[in-house]
Amino acid sequence: MSLAIIGSVAFDTVETLYGKKNNVLGGSATYAALGASFFSPVNLISVVGTDFPRKYYEIFRGRGVNTLGVERKDGETFRWEAKYHKDLIHRDTLSVKLNVFEGFKPVIPIELRKARSLFLANIDPELQGWIFKNVSATGIVACDTMDHWIATKKKELLKLLGKIDILLLNDEEARQLSGESNLLDAARYIISKGAKKVVIKKGEHGALLFSGGLSFMVPVYLVKKVVDPTGAGDTFGGGMLGYLAGKRRITDRDLRRSLVYGSILASFTVEDFSVNALLKVKDRDIRQRYKALMSLVRF
Amino acid sequence: MSLAIIGSVAFDTVETLYGKKNNVLGGSATYAALGASFFSPVNLISVVGTDFPRKYYEIFRGRGVNTLGVERKDGETFRWEAKYHKDLIHRDTLSVKLNVFEGFKPVIPIELRKARSLFLANIDPELQGWIFKNVSATGIVACDTMDHWIATKKKELLKLLGKIDILLLNDEEARQLSGESNLLDAARYIISKGAKKVVIKKGEHGALLFSGGLSFMVPVYLVKKVVDPTGAGDTFGGGMLGYLAGKRRITDRDLRRSLVYGSILASFTVEDFSVNALLKVKDRDIRQRYKALMSLVRF
Repeated sequence: MSLAIIGSVAFDTVETLYGKKNNVLGGSATYAALGASFFSPVNLISVVGTDFPRKYYEIFRGRGVNTLGVERKDGETFRWEAKYHKDLIHRDTLSVKLNVFEGFKPVIPIELRKARSLFLANIDPELQGWIFKNVSATGIVACDTMDHWIATKKKELLKLLGKIDILLLNDEEARQLSGESNLLDAARYIISKGAKKVVIKKGEHGALLFSGGLSFMVPVYLVKKVVDPTGAGDTFGGGMLGYLAGKRRITDRDLRRSLVYGSILASFTVEDFSVNALLKVKDRDIRQRYKALMSLVRF
Repeated sequence: MSLAIIGSVAFDTVETLYGKKNNVLGGSATYAALGASFFSPVNLISVVGTDFPRKYYEIFRGRGVNTLGVERKDGETFRWEAKYHKDLIHRDTLSVKLNVFEGFKPVIPIELRKARSLFLANIDPELQGWIFKNVSATGIVACDTMDHWIATKKKELLKLLGKIDILLLNDEEARQLSGESNLLDAARYIISKGAKKVVIKKGEHGALLFSGGLSFMVPVYLVKKVVDPTGAGDTFGGGMLGYLAGKRRITDRDLRRSLVYGSILASFTVEDFSVNALLKVKDRDIRQRYKALMSLVRF
């Protein structure tokens, strides 16, 4: 029941009103893999530079994430720097250095070429598409993306939609990709392009799932203090896919619950910088927030 | 089990990407009264000018709203003009003419001075406060407000909080009033100032209720086409209070459901200009959206 996750592993430098952290562990696949690790064995597929420290590998191993598919290449690890506005929602990206990701085509170890499920965490759609030639999945396949790829690689992204079960993106991105302002219309457009299901992430307002006749809205667990929202969407996707990877036949109820677990895991991520809060999560913390979300929406 | 609603009755001129309507029926108390009318007898307290046409009185009467408390004064009816951006969320207010509302202190007919419940729809907090000297309520009292009053009459608004059960405002306004960016902190601040409960409206993202240990989140019914969002928040408050006015002892479940009914009524309002869509609502339409919202959040 393994889940293969491809995406970025990075050094993040992040400033919010609660402080600044330099070169801390980040990247879409990092958050996704750690989020998923609460529900499923995870094979991480990515690339790092020779500057990637042993202690970061140990973070993955500590959560049972297999790093055999993380190639170590001559050069520096992907670096991303951003500063959040006071509202802890908007941010300015100060610098992006692809480094070892430049032109990267991962060599997939033979033992990772068959996966139950596959999550293409947010990264260049060309690299996301490349995975299909190298890893086969018998279960669910999901893909995350962002405004930058919609603006620069829309064709490549649309080509992916026919190969995946679920596209995850945020509300503005759904509008950008579809040209529709109404989210129902945006979801219909994306499904018409081949994705079987769409998950529209709305940050602090939760997320929506559209799948045929099914619509589901998951709220966000209201945390006492948002310290750094970096990685919340990636954790959400990872938690969601991790939960689904454990299911042999996915029911509507499983789909709904996968969003709930994604939302819960993301609510931990935002409570501290990097993956610090996520690493402290216990099963009982997840159960407590699950109950709280049930109570939040019951009527 | 009557509900008294005080607020504005207005002529609105509104432009959205779906067209422009001149001098159509609007105003916070108009939307609130029509929303509430699905659940409770309503006494409307407001003022109009001599230009207010018979056909608009008939709209209220058609929904059983008592207009005995709508004073008819020499002068022109309150006028408001706005143009919505393409996103149908943001708008530019082009003109506000208070007209007969300038210095208005309503003369409350003796038969309206006792109400079961009271809803102070969005209007000058001084006028909202004045009502307490003239109408006594044995049941629930709620108050709506907006950014303009928080900026210009914060003291008067804070004074009101000790006299009411529920304050309704949107997320940006909750942050503005409290100086807190986290909505939990904002709600805590408002409750510390005297309101027993806070409802934070989030537009297309639904609404949150905070009341002691109770937190509840209601989603928005996803309509196929938003034509004009004017009055959605007022309809929400009216629907909510109308539902609560019918209850002798309000349970947590009643509170939760009152937000659901408010959200449903608001989802009709946005489907057409002015109160056009709201006037066509049948009980079965409400039941259908109630079921859809239940399904939307169930997991």
